Amino acid sequence: MSDTRDEFSLIDRIRRRANVTSLLGLGIGDDTAHLLTNRDDGVLVAVDVLTEGVHFDLSRTSPDLVGRKALAVNLSDIAAMAGQPTAAVVGLVLPRDRGASLGESMMEGLISLADEFDVAVIGGDTNSWNGPLVISVTILGEPTGKGPVTRAGAEPGDWMFVTGALGGSLVGRHLSFTPRIVEAIALHQAVDLHAMIDISDGLASDLRHIANESQVGATISADRIPIHEDVDASLPVDDRLRHALSDGEDFELLLAVSPLDGERLLGDPPIELPLTHIGEVTDEIECRIRRPDGDVEPLPKGGWHHGFSE
Amino acid sequence: MSDTRDEFSLIDRIRRRANVTSLLGLGIGDDTAHLLTNRDDGVLVAVDVLTEGVHFDLSRTSPDLVGRKALAVNLSDIAAMAGQPTAAVVGLVLPRDRGASLGESMMEGLISLADEFDVAVIGGDTNSWNGPLVISVTILGEPTGKGPVTRAGAEPGDWMFVTGALGGSLVGRHLSFTPRIVEAIALHQAVDLHAMIDISDGLASDLRHIANESQVGATISADRIPIHEDVDASLPVDDRLRHALSDGEDFELLLAVSPLDGERLLGDPPIELPLTHIGEVTDEIECRIRRPDGDVEPLPKGGWHHGFSE
Repeated sequence: MSDTRDEFSLIDRIRRRANVTSLLGLGIGDDTAHLLTNRDDGVLVAVDVLTEGVHFDLSRTSPDLVGRKALAVNLSDIAAMAGQPTAAVVGLVLPRDRGASLGESMMEGLISLADEFDVAVIGGDTNSWNGPLVISVTILGEPTGKGPVTRAGAEPGDWMFVTGALGGSLVGRHLSFTPRIVEAIALHQAVDLHAMIDISDGLASDLRHIANESQVGATISADRIPIHEDVDASLPVDDRLRHALSDGEDFELLLAVSPLDGERLLGDPPIELPLTHIGEVTDEIECRIRRPDGDVEPLPKGGWHHGFSE
Repeated sequence: MSDTRDEFSLIDRIRRRANVTSLLGLGIGDDTAHLLTNRDDGVLVAVDVLTEGVHFDLSRTSPDLVGRKALAVNLSDIAAMAGQPTAAVVGLVLPRDRGASLGESMMEGLISLADEFDVAVIGGDTNSWNGPLVISVTILGEPTGKGPVTRAGAEPGDWMFVTGALGGSLVGRHLSFTPRIVEAIALHQAVDLHAMIDISDGLASDLRHIANESQVGATISADRIPIHEDVDASLPVDDRLRHALSDGEDFELLLAVSPLDGERLLGDPPIELPLTHIGEVTDEIECRIRRPDGDVEPLPKGGWHHGFSE
């Protein structure tokens, strides 16, 4: 956990901000952090890297939102396992000419979100260079007592659900979304989640991830897919559906449960967020979409082909 | 644990390489990795970021050594806590034009070192851009049953030791050094380590880190400091000493033990590497150096002032 002699010291920043946790065995500033673990259930770990010019444009996005998002995408990964996030470490590469103020602002956004979810920022490494901004966040979490929920447990006959609504995230929601930690844990407690993923690549792609890892297929119904109000309402329905299927960065949950648990979720939803039954898992290894007229077609890899025919 | 659709897929690379561990609850490729923990002693966590043009120059350094070093500096942080490393996650930002081959080669070097220390590479995130190479490694480890060794426990009267020899690392050793994991654990088992750090900034700076965190001072003896053979033998003795005190990137261990344990370490060294008694901890809050003629001077922050007088 070395820190460089930059104007902006991440370690000092974290120390000042006093973002700590009862799980932290050691204070910030030693060679490593020491995180006490609550249970014998092990540790969940994920890393995400965001780069200036690829994932964000600082001429249009304020740095606190970039810091927030760098943590939020990781929290969403923990949510996809129905885990409880506990701690994060941050690797920063700051542009030499803008470093100190950028670093401060990014960490402000990141730590604010961390506080919302009781996540301790327990360490980091800062560097500066004559290049664009890079932020790498590693998140640690714990499975609940019921264990982590993987992508691999969907069974033929299962019902597929999504939380919230999809599409149009790049209008702005991708920077300010709420990771579905609370919802994932509530769902995990209420029913037996067979498989779950967070929708980052888009519903069509992430459905395929569950299908591949579970060695099953799935058929979803076009007219059940919840389309977000961020998708331009004046567009033709096909275009709106394409956005919902393939825009990505929704960071909603896609999950598979037994039909019996599906009925339970519909009858007595354990979360406030809308929970929509969008389709079923099949034993045929293909992802398909049911057209409003009842015809079933292969679901294109990229999501949705305009006019059901391209 | 998202992976982008690059030519070089870190997740595929890790999966193919089959670098796994009995501690891994889940395979690679889900939203997070799941690391089972052996004990109730919690988790050690550290992150280090290396950037092209700042930490390494790919026109002079082969990428496998860069990958190796990115892990090695983290392993050294775990060694400084006398911990056992268990797992690593890797964040990569690859230059678009050189990405695939660079990625392969870097991971080759990183995973070879991981194998040497039974560290599982359990996940990662790859991105590419039109910029220089960035690699961020987060290491997880476990304290031994005796707990982690911090920088904060040195007591007045303690003896200070260093492993190995210091200085001249930038000639090449900084890319190929062996992190002192084995030595740290052997020392921790043999005696009661009051404080420890790995020498990354240089002996003078890292001695100060222990002194600051322990709220003590220290006096080391100039003629006891082991100077590495990588330091040019033709230099005047003062210059050689300056290299040993301030070059940094030695990644040797600096530790404080009671005089009784110090005698034990000298009488029956628990490690094969040279272990040198270089000085004592003092209750006066200052770091000092004893000249060969017996005079004691303040130890300059940067390490060593030429000719004892600047």
